[in-house]
This record gives sequence, structure tokens and C-alpha cells, in this order.
Amino acid sequence: MHITVQREKLSNAVSHVMKAVSARTTLPILTGIKIKADEDGLTLTASDSDLSIEVYIPTEEAGEWGVTVHRPGSVVLTARIFSEIVRKLPNDEIELEVDNRLVTLIRSGQSEFTINGMNADEFPQLMQLEEEKVLSIPGDLLKAMIRQTVFAASTSEMRPILTGIMWSLEQGQLTFVSTDSHRLASRKAMVECSPELSFHNVVVPGKSCNELVKILDDSQDPVDIVVGENQIMVRAKHILFYSRLLEGTYPDTSRIIPQGSKTDMVVNAKEFLQSIERASLLSREGKSNVVRLVTMANNTVEISSNAPEIGKVIEIVHPQSLSGEELRISFNAKYMIDALRSMESAEIKVSFTGSMSPFVLKPTENDWILHLILPVRTY
Amino acid sequence: MHITVQREKLSNAVSHVMKAVSARTTLPILTGIKIKADEDGLTLTASDSDLSIEVYIPTEEAGEWGVTVHRPGSVVLTARIFSEIVRKLPNDEIELEVDNRLVTLIRSGQSEFTINGMNADEFPQLMQLEEEKVLSIPGDLLKAMIRQTVFAASTSEMRPILTGIMWSLEQGQLTFVSTDSHRLASRKAMVECSPELSFHNVVVPGKSCNELVKILDDSQDPVDIVVGENQIMVRAKHILFYSRLLEGTYPDTSRIIPQGSKTDMVVNAKEFLQSIERASLLSREGKSNVVRLVTMANNTVEISSNAPEIGKVIEIVHPQSLSGEELRISFNAKYMIDALRSMESAEIKVSFTGSMSPFVLKPTENDWILHLILPVRTY
Repeated sequence: MHITVQREKLSNAVSHVMKAVSARTTLPILTGIKIKADEDGLTLTASDSDLSIEVYIPTEEAGEWGVTVHRPGSVVLTARIFSEIVRKLPNDEIELEVDNRLVTLIRSGQSEFTINGMNADEFPQLMQLEEEKVLSIPGDLLKAMIRQTVFAASTSEMRPILTGIMWSLEQGQLTFVSTDSHRLASRKAMVECSPELSFHNVVVPGKSCNELVKILDDSQDPVDIVVGENQIMVRAKHILFYSRLLEGTYPDTSRIIPQGSKTDMVVNAKEFLQSIERASLLSREGKSNVVRLVTMANNTVEISSNAPEIGKVIEIVHPQSLSGEELRISFNAKYMIDALRSMESAEIKVSFTGSMSPFVLKPTENDWILHLILPVRTY
Repeated sequence: MHITVQREKLSNAVSHVMKAVSARTTLPILTGIKIKADEDGLTLTASDSDLSIEVYIPTEEAGEWGVTVHRPGSVVLTARIFSEIVRKLPNDEIELEVDNRLVTLIRSGQSEFTINGMNADEFPQLMQLEEEKVLSIPGDLLKAMIRQTVFAASTSEMRPILTGIMWSLEQGQLTFVSTDSHRLASRKAMVECSPELSFHNVVVPGKSCNELVKILDDSQDPVDIVVGENQIMVRAKHILFYSRLLEGTYPDTSRIIPQGSKTDMVVNAKEFLQSIERASLLSREGKSNVVRLVTMANNTVEISSNAPEIGKVIEIVHPQSLSGEELRISFNAKYMIDALRSMESAEIKVSFTGSMSPFVLKPTENDWILHLILPVRTY
């Protein structure tokens, strides 16, 4: 292989695929990035047991030079070293030349590295997906859907299936659900796809979702999602992202979402969040991070918390509206803070069905987002 | 004590004194911030075994309100909790009211904290310094002097005296020296003081110096330095900063700085730094982080390094000038990178006296800064 490549494009491609390089692996070749040059351009690939990322640099695009392939070929270079070299090279052009012992010369300006490469044939092949179940969604919407649900996924390996986000599709509506069994987040959106396409129980690891958020840019350009038997592929411009799916059956969460409500409250999201954050300064000193919410006379709500030996805090909140039964309820402040921060809405409706039952948060302006939090039984 | 204080001023004051709060201490009172109100304003104090910081908020300054003292008094509040409360309170005004059991009410808007306080009489008194040895220096210059030397101080407790910066003053010239016995940094500046004032062997802990850099702002406003028997005080606007001095005699470093030179080289600081940084990508894979520098024919210098099993790197540097004997020398790349990054000069003169002797870096435009690095003996 012998190529000359534009440094910034190579640097961006390397930083994308780096997210799939595993620091600890039993397969030494997976500490590397596979670099493959053919007449169309340059392809970089990295892979760990959970996810694989492939980034493509075309020889030229929209009149802008990307890479010149003097001699096609391939090599695998240790990701950590290669990424740092690329980032620090002095010139806009980088030359890579691999000899028949896989020794790779990296040249830029007055700088010349000679790095031992590995055989690209030993790099695992990415599994090809049959493109039967394809749907299309704006990249920034996919990112928002992940961000608004991934925090509620479990981080404990006690029930591995709960460490993922459950994706489902029905009648053109894509739904993401996550829960750690103490709280639940759900986000829906309409997507472009064939009307008969549907799937359920597609559980994407939370870690993969987090990496996907980092790789996708914030544009509305559509990305394709292809769902396979045990993996999923997301295809953005010049990027292919593969993640394995979690095995097992995701619990049916629909039946735990209460249908009616006994007490309803509409709050300014920012003010309510700040009150909870202040109350949690003391509640988090304890183990369970519990704050209390009590409805008061004259349409106010009191948020309170205390920490033994330190002190206590009382916050008075004035909801936009408050109706229904009187209520005293306790909950984990962190769950409330996570939900409120993720919602990006000015007004939130909170619907309670008694102090022992889960309660629901929704934006007032739409039905796409729903958060459910289980109370803590202190009363 | 009962006061109403402007939130941002209180928040800034708290974040300054926080730097002297020790996380681990055998004296519980030192986990707190002492808050004292009298007719002039509010004083916040924190202290650990090494340093103490006092910040003052006047009742009013340049027509701008700071604090209203309804009833003078004092209290000590746990620093970690108090600082977070202050940062998160909703209103521009914060009311603090301490009752006779030291329970402190912190009120702002609809938010009300009740925090258990400690007795301010138990807080250790700051030692007063006799203001005999006072000098004055622009704050930004003091910060620069610290930044340009502190990195070369030792971080090992093997020789505690080397973990500090040695300050000395003679004929109006303030000198900072630091060394970890492998490299040395020196920075001089003229300051304002009485002409007969002089001191030597004033060794300020590196950690104190780092905190001082964070507290001083970047203005040219003068700060006063008062040197005492075993502590030093720096006085900026509304801030008093005390640090203990390290005990012992700082080694005489003047005799290890070579007077002549056998090979001289003037380089563009940025280009030279980047070459060393690239070479160190491989050298740091080894234990000693060694790069080689070799003078070549036609006025060039070769920087090189290698890492077993990974590869090697060669950098060609074109110095602005190169004169004297041929040279092959090896040194720790980190020491060179630290020195070059700190110097903030466009051109650097490097003076060698053979491959086994320390070499010296100076800016070409002035004599205020000197760095010395001991070579590694590989040739």
C-alpha cells in the first residue's frame, strides 16, 4: 500500500473509529485500526466485541482532494500510537507506504515514522446485513432520542438486558424505551420507512448508543438504520456503525405506566429542576438521595430534604397549575434531575397516582417523551 | 450574625478560600469556612496545614453594594456543603442568620437551608507577619514567574526541600529557582522594594504556588509579598494568601550552571517543540522517555527516538543558527517539552557543553529565563 492523504480527513476518520478500539482485548489485532486503500479511496475500520466502526475517505469529493492511492493494499496499525502520530504530524499531507514486511513509513514534512504493522487479513470481517429492514431518520433526531433515554438504562450487569435501549417500530413510529427498574424513559418519533416494516425487542447496548451519539454530527441529514438478527447498523455519510444487540427478552414496560392520575401539576421545568437540585445537595449526603414533595394550601408545593448532623432544606415551588388530591410523596432526586435535564421543554406536566405509585413526567406541548419514576416508600 | 450578601461576590469569595480547605484533616473545624461579619464587611477564611486564604467583601465599594451587616458575628460552616449551596441559590441576594446554637439559616428567594454551624472561636488564628520585608510586583508577572518554574520542582518527598520554589531577592531582583535534580528552571524579574531589602532560601511549597496562580487574576495590579520567618504572605485586592515555608537549606544551584558552551543552536521554539513532541510519542513508550539529538552536515539537527517492537521516528530540524563542535546527546523528552512550553518565546538559544554535561535553554531576546537539563548517558 502507498497513499498520500489529507491530514485533517485522516485525523477525523481515526478519531471516529477509535471509539470502537478496545483497550483490553485478547485479540492483539483489535488494538489496531485496519487501513485499506483501493481505487475509490481509503477505508478505516476498528472493532471490539460490541461494536465496529468503518469510515471512508473518498479520493475526491465535491472538488476537494481526500486521498491519492499510489498502490492499493492494506495494513493494521496500533490505534493508540497511530492516532497520536496523525494528530501531531506537521504537514497537511501525510504519506503512508507499507513494505512487504508490513513496516509502514509515515512521512509528513521533515517528520518520518517507521511503524511495525500487522496483517490486515487477520482483522475480523464485519458481518454483512441484509438490507430488508431499513428505516431513515434525521441524524440529530436519532441523537436526541438516544440522549433522552440512555441515562435511564441500567448500569448493573444483574439483568444485562436492562443495560440497553429497547428499539421498536410500528406503523412508522420508532420508540426507544429504557429502564433500570426504578425509573423509565421513553421517546417516540415518526420515521421514514416502508409502512409494513415493524420490529420489536431490538435492544441496543447503552454503551454503543453513547458512542453513536459522539460519532453522528448535529445535522438533519438522514441516517439509515438497518436491523438484523443480532446486530444493528447505522449508516451516515462515509460512516458505518455496527453494534451487536443484547440477547434476551426486554420486559413489557407498557403495563407499568399508569393510565389515570389523582394529582396533576404543571411546572416551569427550569425552576423545578433547580429546586430539586438544591434539595439534593442535602439528600445526596444520605444513601438513598431522597427528597420529599408535599402539596400545600394556596397552590404551592414544598420540596424538602434533610441530612443528619448537617441540616435541612425547604424549597417552595409555585406550579403553573395544581389539581386533584393532596399528596405527600418521596423519590430519588437523581432520577428526577436526570429526567428534567433530558426533556428540553419549558413546561412539564407531572401526574401522580398516590404516594405509593409510579408517577409520570411529560412535556405539556407534545406526547413524544414520557418519564416514569417509582417513589421511595417513606410515608 | 445576620447579614444579606450579594451572591456573586460571596460565590467568588467562597471559591477562592476553598483552595485552602483540606479534604482530609484531623481537625474537623478546618473542613469549614470561617465567616465573620463586622461593620466594615464580611471576611471568609479557610486554612489547612500548609496554606491559609482570607477574602474580604466590603459593605460597599465604588458605589456597588456588597454586604449589609444587620448584626455582627461569626460562624464556621462546612465548606463543601456551603460552597455548593451558595453556587445554586436562586436569587442575587443571600441572607445568612446564625442563632445562638450556631444553627445557620441561609435564605434566598423561595429556598431556605438550615445548616448546623461550628464555633468560630475554635478556628485557628492566622499568624500575623511583621511587615518589614515587603516587596511589590504586578500580579500577572508573579503568576508568570511561578508558571515558568513550578513544573521543575520535585514531586517526590525524598528531598522535601526540592518540592518548593526557592525565592530570593537581591538589589531589587527577585529570583525563582526550582529543580528536581534532573533539570532546573530559573526566572528573574525586577521588583519594587526598599533597595536594602534582601532575602535568600525562602522556599515556598510548589502546591502553594499552584494555588496562588489560580487565585491571582491576570491584571498588572501590584500585589504585595511579605516574607516572614517561616511563612510568606501575598496580599492582593481583598485577598490575603499565607503559605508556610519549607524548612531546610536549598542546594546551591549556581555552580551547576555551565558558564561557557561548545555547541550553540538557535531554534524556532514552536517548531522545535513540535518535533520533540512527535519524537516523544515513541520515546515515552520506554521507561526513560529518551530522545537523541545529533548535529548533521549542512546546518541541520536530527531528533530521533525508537520504541522496541513499535517502530522509530526521525525528525529533521533546521535551526536558525548552529555553531561549534559536533554533538550527539540524549535527554528526557518531557524535561525539554516542559521547558519549551513554559518559555513563551519565539526563539530559543540552546547551549551545549558536550554530550555528558548539562545544557542550557534561554530566550534569545532576554536573560530573565534559564532552563537547564541534564543529559541521559546513552553515548
